[in-house]
Amino acid sequence: MKTLPKRRRRTKGSTVETKQRIVDAALAIAAAKGFEQATTAEIAQQAGVAEGSIYNYFRTKDDLLIHMVGQYASSFLRQLEDEVGEEQDALKKLERLISFHIRFFTQEGNIFQVIYGKTPGTRVRMARIIRVAIVPYVSILEGIIGEGIRQGKIRKLNPQVAASFLLGGMQLALLRRFFDLADYSPDDAIEHIREVYLHGLAAK
Amino acid sequence: MKTLPKRRRRTKGSTVETKQRIVDAALAIAAAKGFEQATTAEIAQQAGVAEGSIYNYFRTKDDLLIHMVGQYASSFLRQLEDEVGEEQDALKKLERLISFHIRFFTQEGNIFQVIYGKTPGTRVRMARIIRVAIVPYVSILEGIIGEGIRQGKIRKLNPQVAASFLLGGMQLALLRRFFDLADYSPDDAIEHIREVYLHGLAAK
Repeated sequence: MKTLPKRRRRTKGSTVETKQRIVDAALAIAAAKGFEQATTAEIAQQAGVAEGSIYNYFRTKDDLLIHMVGQYASSFLRQLEDEVGEEQDALKKLERLISFHIRFFTQEGNIFQVIYGKTPGTRVRMARIIRVAIVPYVSILEGIIGEGIRQGKIRKLNPQVAASFLLGGMQLALLRRFFDLADYSPDDAIEHIREVYLHGLAAK
Repeated sequence: MKTLPKRRRRTKGSTVETKQRIVDAALAIAAAKGFEQATTAEIAQQAGVAEGSIYNYFRTKDDLLIHMVGQYASSFLRQLEDEVGEEQDALKKLERLISFHIRFFTQEGNIFQVIYGKTPGTRVRMARIIRVAIVPYVSILEGIIGEGIRQGKIRKLNPQVAASFLLGGMQLALLRRFFDLADYSPDDAIEHIREVYLHGLAAK
């Protein structure tokens, strides 16, 4: 590998630093106001660079946001690896992973804050969508799960958790197919979701 | 209940029709281009009304979108009710619900098309976010599930489906808490997700 001349190395070094300063600023602003509301003007100001110079590092505002999400995801996965890496038993690994995942995304600065913002004003749209689209559906699911518990067919679980889990799980299984990131068929999805979920729910 | 004079009733009737025409136009445009890309100018043109008159029916573009999502959700829930309503056994109800849900959202005009659009160009950002944030994580989950199948601890399931299901399920359980739409604690979420998922996954 060729070594770069000293001067070039220093320039490269501060380029990386500046890029990171921009990403950090974008993350902090998005965590406070939400993803959509973070403007390049504000990001530049917080990073201490000229607004135009953001475009020396990122082709578009979207590029910057994707880079930011990618860094966030890598950091999560590194910590997850530390958490579950030494465990040998796959079921125990998943057991630890579930705790780690829920705790990580309940902390300050979690990805929901980055996407929707901490301040109440900026998360209004998503809250309204959840209210009209998700709440009535999870209520129905909760009703069915509660019914099953009374019938003695479903183990005594928190119906709110169990209902949210089913709805979110189905939606991501669908979303992944929609973006061509999986090769299972709808029938496979149905069969395997039923197998995991219904077996998991069934009373002992 | 007082009846309205005839003239007023007719006006009210066409008001409802116009409002519905606007919602239908918004839905069609969002399904083709995606939610964010649907402009009021286009919606007005497709609905055959003046752009300004949209604001006689909806305070903001967001109001229109929320109304559209609400109608879409109601229609889904009516059909779901028809599908599972007569079933008495709660587990069988959920079994039917899972098929119905997956099939409904795999059809033409499903909510993913409404949110992200049918045309490849407009869903690029979400696809990139999924690629940097979700794909590496589900790959790890798939690896663990595959390991467990080889260890004989996990039943023979499609690891892609099982991994997507876990990730989506955890995220919605968290999202609902983030928007104050549930009263379970993070510890409750961990406990009940583990109980459903790990029990559902465990080899017989």
